[in-house]
Amino acid sequence: MISASSLDRVVEAMAPLYAAMTLGYGAVRWWHALTPDQCTGINRFVSVFAIPLLTFHLLSSNDPYAMNPRFLAADSCQKLLLLTILFIWARLRPRSATGASSSSLPWVITIFSLATLPNTVVMGIPLLRGMYGPQTDALMVQIVVLQAAVWYNLVIFLYEYMAARCAATEGCQPDGSVPTLRPMSEKEAAVAAFNGHLVEEGEGEAIKLPPSPPSMWVILTVAGRKLCRIPNTHASFFGLIWSFIAFGFGIKMPKIIDDSVTIISGTAIGLSMFNIGTFMAKQTRLISCGYSVAAFAMVIKFFVGPSIMIVTSLAFGLQDLLLRVAIIQAALPLAVLSFVYAKEYNVHPEIMSTGVILGIFSSVPITILYYMILGQWK
Amino acid sequence: MISASSLDRVVEAMAPLYAAMTLGYGAVRWWHALTPDQCTGINRFVSVFAIPLLTFHLLSSNDPYAMNPRFLAADSCQKLLLLTILFIWARLRPRSATGASSSSLPWVITIFSLATLPNTVVMGIPLLRGMYGPQTDALMVQIVVLQAAVWYNLVIFLYEYMAARCAATEGCQPDGSVPTLRPMSEKEAAVAAFNGHLVEEGEGEAIKLPPSPPSMWVILTVAGRKLCRIPNTHASFFGLIWSFIAFGFGIKMPKIIDDSVTIISGTAIGLSMFNIGTFMAKQTRLISCGYSVAAFAMVIKFFVGPSIMIVTSLAFGLQDLLLRVAIIQAALPLAVLSFVYAKEYNVHPEIMSTGVILGIFSSVPITILYYMILGQWK
Repeated sequence: MISASSLDRVVEAMAPLYAAMTLGYGAVRWWHALTPDQCTGINRFVSVFAIPLLTFHLLSSNDPYAMNPRFLAADSCQKLLLLTILFIWARLRPRSATGASSSSLPWVITIFSLATLPNTVVMGIPLLRGMYGPQTDALMVQIVVLQAAVWYNLVIFLYEYMAARCAATEGCQPDGSVPTLRPMSEKEAAVAAFNGHLVEEGEGEAIKLPPSPPSMWVILTVAGRKLCRIPNTHASFFGLIWSFIAFGFGIKMPKIIDDSVTIISGTAIGLSMFNIGTFMAKQTRLISCGYSVAAFAMVIKFFVGPSIMIVTSLAFGLQDLLLRVAIIQAALPLAVLSFVYAKEYNVHPEIMSTGVILGIFSSVPITILYYMILGQWK
Repeated sequence: MISASSLDRVVEAMAPLYAAMTLGYGAVRWWHALTPDQCTGINRFVSVFAIPLLTFHLLSSNDPYAMNPRFLAADSCQKLLLLTILFIWARLRPRSATGASSSSLPWVITIFSLATLPNTVVMGIPLLRGMYGPQTDALMVQIVVLQAAVWYNLVIFLYEYMAARCAATEGCQPDGSVPTLRPMSEKEAAVAAFNGHLVEEGEGEAIKLPPSPPSMWVILTVAGRKLCRIPNTHASFFGLIWSFIAFGFGIKMPKIIDDSVTIISGTAIGLSMFNIGTFMAKQTRLISCGYSVAAFAMVIKFFVGPSIMIVTSLAFGLQDLLLRVAIIQAALPLAVLSFVYAKEYNVHPEIMSTGVILGIFSSVPITILYYMILGQWK
């Protein structure tokens, strides 16, 4: 049974995040304290410096030899199981007149991102700490390690694969599967730069498209180069390397370096939420994809994702705290990074934007609901 | 005698600040990760949200009934003594052919700011904590309370007085004493907005200038209206009010509000230093006022200010820790806010810019020198 005091703790943990978000919203919408260009500056700082340094900080201080294999197996299997289901659905789906079965792929990626890539760093760590205490931090970090090392890379690979195939067949449907293997226009670059950190402003490489469907090698090369341009990739890589060395040989990071990372990484959570607030303030409509699609996205996010997680967690024999943490983290709101990718590849960005915004508002009641149900259970 | 380990602590306390500054410098100068407009966004966030909330946080958590009167008296007398000396000098100074004795006033304000307004919040608290432990935090906060409640207001008043007199006599010298009682041009507004938070972009009130030297009442009104537009003024006011209520009646701030303030105020120090780095990167020359004026500014900052502080501290019988803290805080680098005002009123901005930049580089060796001398003393 959940006590009133533990609910208080959850509200206490989440309220500052929403306060920072409201401040960001108000700064743009109510007080006009920041212009869109100035918001871009804050967004750049968050995505190029603050979040990568926070990722580095989390990964480098996580003991990779003391990770919980069953917990991570349950999390990984949730994602693999959903991917398998989605690919089977894409195979079985009746093809359109143009024969482009690739039009299923955008939906595979969108549903996969919605269901399995929650906002673990910014919202997950404070929320779970509020619910079950600071011992959950290490579990959340383990999820983040896999997200950074595996799952976001897989998503980028899928996007690149889709873009490359789509460009080669020239049969892209207008449902969102537009390739990006072309130089971005200035406006697109500016939009992408506002919303994330994937595109250097004014950059844009004209990659020669092969006449036939590109080989897996070409796709891998393009995806690899893309990944290398993302600051978070470097941060994850170095954080992981350091953690293996440090915990393997019992080396501690020098206090000066640790504090130098922390002085910037410590700004990440507050500024991220502020940044989400400015992002919301700039949308003309909060629910830009229509109500029925929004409802569908919310079902995927808050019901399908956690449900599969329950199945795989029970399959791997998770119990008590591990089981609860596994389920609740699956019901966290959608990561903003997923929207960033959706926007860059122009694959259902309006669904992802709605997913981020609605997710943030629904996450507290819904995760508390899960929390209460799980508190009653056993 | 100062041990090597205490020097280590000082270096440990300061290194992260310089790391954040270097990151800001590199972001603009080396990696071109941020455009000037984007830097403005970060600067606005720092000056409109982060620093005011940090000021509020510091003031509201400081017990105003437990302040150290002798410490504050020594600090206040340092400022009053210097002001008196400067005004006597301005009176005795031979007048120019146009009879404009007002041309001394810019120098009074500049020297006063250089000598007595150090960067207490961002650099003082970590530096002094590194030297003498966390019990110095409360002393630093007391200095900040007076800075926010009295001294910056006095500086703004002096600037406004100068501008009003200068506009009325129409005899401004080209040595910097240009009035601001006119609408700013777009470019000026953009520059001011980059460098601080005093001017809303595109704003600029056309105030009718009186034909004769304006009355003290007009100057007070203009200065008051200016102060009311500065977010830090509101923050200081509410922080002070809250501290009187809270410590008077034994009320604690609700955790939710406290954490909501801290999530943003916690970004202030890292982002401020990052912001100073971007500011440096945008200067064409680091020493823009020439070497002899720069040397003069450094003498004022690191010798005159602390020397007067030694005199007043001994006069008020400060000893041991209090004496050391009083002297070392007087030798901290110049506050960026002083440059912001100098830029807005166009009064020796190049000296203030040099003061901020050189001050930051010289402060660590010079404050450590003071620290070592004071460690030997008694």
